[in-house]
Amino acid sequence: MSEKLFDRVALIGIGLIGSSLARVLRRDSPETAIVACARRAETLAAVRRLEIADETTDDPAIAVAGADLVVIATPLSAYAEVGRRFVPALRADAIVTDVGSVKEAVIRELGPLLPASVHFVPGHPVAGTEHSGPEAGFAELFHDRWCILTPPPGTSPAAVAKVTQLWESAGMRVTAMAADHHDKVLAMTSHLPHLIAYTIVGTATDLADDLRSEVIAFSAGGFRDFTRIAASDPVMWRDIFLANREAVLEILQRFSEDLTALQRAIRRGEADRLEALFAQTRAIRRSIIEAKQA
Amino acid sequence: MSEKLFDRVALIGIGLIGSSLARVLRRDSPETAIVACARRAETLAAVRRLEIADETTDDPAIAVAGADLVVIATPLSAYAEVGRRFVPALRADAIVTDVGSVKEAVIRELGPLLPASVHFVPGHPVAGTEHSGPEAGFAELFHDRWCILTPPPGTSPAAVAKVTQLWESAGMRVTAMAADHHDKVLAMTSHLPHLIAYTIVGTATDLADDLRSEVIAFSAGGFRDFTRIAASDPVMWRDIFLANREAVLEILQRFSEDLTALQRAIRRGEADRLEALFAQTRAIRRSIIEAKQA
Repeated sequence: MSEKLFDRVALIGIGLIGSSLARVLRRDSPETAIVACARRAETLAAVRRLEIADETTDDPAIAVAGADLVVIATPLSAYAEVGRRFVPALRADAIVTDVGSVKEAVIRELGPLLPASVHFVPGHPVAGTEHSGPEAGFAELFHDRWCILTPPPGTSPAAVAKVTQLWESAGMRVTAMAADHHDKVLAMTSHLPHLIAYTIVGTATDLADDLRSEVIAFSAGGFRDFTRIAASDPVMWRDIFLANREAVLEILQRFSEDLTALQRAIRRGEADRLEALFAQTRAIRRSIIEAKQA
Repeated sequence: MSEKLFDRVALIGIGLIGSSLARVLRRDSPETAIVACARRAETLAAVRRLEIADETTDDPAIAVAGADLVVIATPLSAYAEVGRRFVPALRADAIVTDVGSVKEAVIRELGPLLPASVHFVPGHPVAGTEHSGPEAGFAELFHDRWCILTPPPGTSPAAVAKVTQLWESAGMRVTAMAADHHDKVLAMTSHLPHLIAYTIVGTATDLADDLRSEVIAFSAGGFRDFTRIAASDPVMWRDIFLANREAVLEILQRFSEDLTALQRAIRRGEADRLEALFAQTRAIRRSIIEAKQA
């Protein structure tokens, strides 16, 4: 940030994403005051040890007092409760944004709680690792990743511009789309892959002992990639699947049909059909490499 | 290799694995003569351009003449045909090994063709990338990976020892197990993950155009890892699924049941059940990290 975008930023939730954003602010905007809010005392102690916030509190109302930017970075299931607690303490002209992986549910839950004078700019920085907690954060997490904003119709363009600048300063490419569209796209690119990864690792966990120990030893053949994805934060992902239930179940249904078709082709020994399908999927990989997301 | 293990090595098939092994032999055992055999003229031209073999031929019988080691590194569906062609030209005391990802089918198909004096040591270096062809190979591909040998009962220990030394010189950790056990372990660690990845990328390919282009743009959230896996060689994978049909269908059935249970938990909003499952899968990731396969 070439100039100070915000005077006082309240980070409600300070895990991987919240603490990474704190590090970006520290680095690029040292004059911005950072307040970190978390429920657990050990999280706040870690934040103080890491020196990534000026103040720490477990009270969302204290955190947002005087803040011109409030960033909600808790699991989705905590939004309604923290919102209920901080709304009375919000500055009249505050910008409220979030980092949640599902957007329609967030707008539905949080939107009605906020006073009309407050600017609500829901957002989703599409970045992460399989690690969680404030120690896992790093300023470069966002670099060259997409951030998707889903401001409801009528949101102040100035507020959207400021949130855009914030994420751009973190190195992100920022775009905007409708919340329901975001939720469909992410159901395919992120939620279904995580669901599948959790399932496949669960399937391996249930194998007989001798087989399971060898699955671990010889995991390099593809399974390993799934275990990394399936090591992601359990609470966060529980919330995502429940908050985006409809889109996830719809895309899962399509996936199951496709898997059944493939299963049938293997059982019947349909070599040409298998080869054609596998050749086709190479093309989408090429598109992704061209889109520089690989 | 501190000493020359083999005088003359015939590589039948010279794609990613075959050409990587050629590079290892070139580097560590320059006095070993390497004969590369491939069906297509452009593959052989690439091998000559890369200077990773002393001789090139499209005739398996010419390739194996005088070779003390024959390495089959073609897709599985070509084994029977190349075997039929090279068997009459084999040296009486030759060692024949392979690099195929399925072992029971290989032993069933190739074993009966080989004269009793020839030493058959089926093997599977568990290494690879999503790229294919001789240009994609590199000597370090095998480094620190497992190689699983599945010698049938009664195989000469000296022959097994020489094949072990070969892969150890390539940097691999070599182990032995029964062929049917290998096929079950790999169905879980490699074949099912590839099947799933092909399916999910196929599901994305069938999305409406506007959604698909955004799936490509925002693929960083998990989907990208699947597209890399699903970019693997189509013919090789077609053959693997068909050759290991039974084990793959068995593990796929378990996976489908687990996926259906998860789908049901999401539909019914069973938060505790989801969280417990997702927490459990973290443990297996930890085991893999401890087994140094991550």
